[in-house]
Amino acid sequence: MVAVGELLSRWHEALAEQSPVAIATVIEGPEGSMGSKLLVAPEDHIGTAGNEELDKAVVEAARGLLEGGRTETRHFGPRGQRRMEDVAVFVQSFAPPPKMYVFGAIDFASAVARIGKFMGYRVIVCDARPVFATRERFPSADEVVVAWPDEFLKTAEVDKRSVICVLTHDPKFDVPVLKTALATEAGYIGAMGSRRTHDNRTARLKEEGVSDEDLARIASPIGLDVGARTPEETAVAIAGEIIALRTEHSGGRLAGKSGPIHVPDTQEAVRNPSR
Amino acid sequence: MVAVGELLSRWHEALAEQSPVAIATVIEGPEGSMGSKLLVAPEDHIGTAGNEELDKAVVEAARGLLEGGRTETRHFGPRGQRRMEDVAVFVQSFAPPPKMYVFGAIDFASAVARIGKFMGYRVIVCDARPVFATRERFPSADEVVVAWPDEFLKTAEVDKRSVICVLTHDPKFDVPVLKTALATEAGYIGAMGSRRTHDNRTARLKEEGVSDEDLARIASPIGLDVGARTPEETAVAIAGEIIALRTEHSGGRLAGKSGPIHVPDTQEAVRNPSR
Repeated sequence: MVAVGELLSRWHEALAEQSPVAIATVIEGPEGSMGSKLLVAPEDHIGTAGNEELDKAVVEAARGLLEGGRTETRHFGPRGQRRMEDVAVFVQSFAPPPKMYVFGAIDFASAVARIGKFMGYRVIVCDARPVFATRERFPSADEVVVAWPDEFLKTAEVDKRSVICVLTHDPKFDVPVLKTALATEAGYIGAMGSRRTHDNRTARLKEEGVSDEDLARIASPIGLDVGARTPEETAVAIAGEIIALRTEHSGGRLAGKSGPIHVPDTQEAVRNPSR
Repeated sequence: MVAVGELLSRWHEALAEQSPVAIATVIEGPEGSMGSKLLVAPEDHIGTAGNEELDKAVVEAARGLLEGGRTETRHFGPRGQRRMEDVAVFVQSFAPPPKMYVFGAIDFASAVARIGKFMGYRVIVCDARPVFATRERFPSADEVVVAWPDEFLKTAEVDKRSVICVLTHDPKFDVPVLKTALATEAGYIGAMGSRRTHDNRTARLKEEGVSDEDLARIASPIGLDVGARTPEETAVAIAGEIIALRTEHSGGRLAGKSGPIHVPDTQEAVRNPSR
């Protein structure tokens, strides 16, 4: 059984480095197991919940939750059996904030970056044009990168929680970056442009051999249909679509619809980037 | 003909006091009329576009545009005739920022106040409970008022551009404030709450004699259906609905819909609070 001190120092280290880590604590279980802790990182784990089989099940569950930055209580049998409730394990994810990549340092990008921060994302703005991709223009962005979007995205860290907004309007930039984005597991890929830009871009992507299935992954034209005209309104429309796609909601008005509304709970709050 | 100096000083004064004023400038018209200016305030006007009949038509048009904080070029006949194009008048509105009233100083209200500022509103938060309605809790709000919501709203300035968000969840507060809100010309009235709260509130409002037509004016449950869980996500859902209702759009995703998208133009940008 690993010393708590070792676990705490690994935990502290992970937080300091913003590397993802989940802490699993037995909150219900057999005599003496209460409070047992596992630290679960993507590659390894330390500590124990009581026995190897249980640890195996907890580690697997914790990695799944960590991937989504989620915090939940999971139940297992004494030996890690599924569909048994004997052991309750509280799994708390400490995941770095999800990333929002904004390609195209146009005026609209600044408002998108600001609402990205509002929602709790780490925001990276990228444009090949040094004149546009400047700190001055994007004070709220965490990083402003001067590079060709597709080349930069190939080297960037992208996971299921990542959001990619392509605002370039320019096939020269956005066709290659969208192809690169489709090769990632990004949870949201959106592309800005008028209907004509959209149709033209779709045609070019097809020429490049992008499948209809992949095309369907691209939110284009980007955003919810709110009649957005200004950069701030467009940013709201994009933010709304990012949330709606993750939760699989329609984005229409709640008024006049029936059925329950998601009400916030602390678990969700932890699960969600905006906390 | 009024001296330009007098017009400019009225103009300057209005901007300083944040009182609404529209400046109408003839940009196309008969010999010598080009550049003629009228200053149009809600109660009076100074200057001329060339003749009384034309002035009458321009003032009427300018007041309409000023009410919505809109800037547009309008066309008239030489004597102010409608459906004639001889004279083009550029009407620029200088309206104070529209107001967002947030009732209920709950945790969610802070995120709503922040996105209200993001969209360019003057944000006023009001709650009867001094412990909750504090500057500390609402740093981004322009005003934080401790008062009974309905009593405060009765004395507040509300126009067509005003937005009223009732987040109290508490019939004791929100039934009276919603009744008061319905007596105003507010462009948006939203009320937060679960389906049960909504049904219960609707029943109480009907008991209070509120008509179905008035009830239909209340966006309840408030916001777009994006599966919002956190305060920030809920704020995005509310902001999206505020925009969608003003522009008479449906919400829902643009992707997969057909028809043109509103693309921003400077005129709209001026018309809109967020610029």
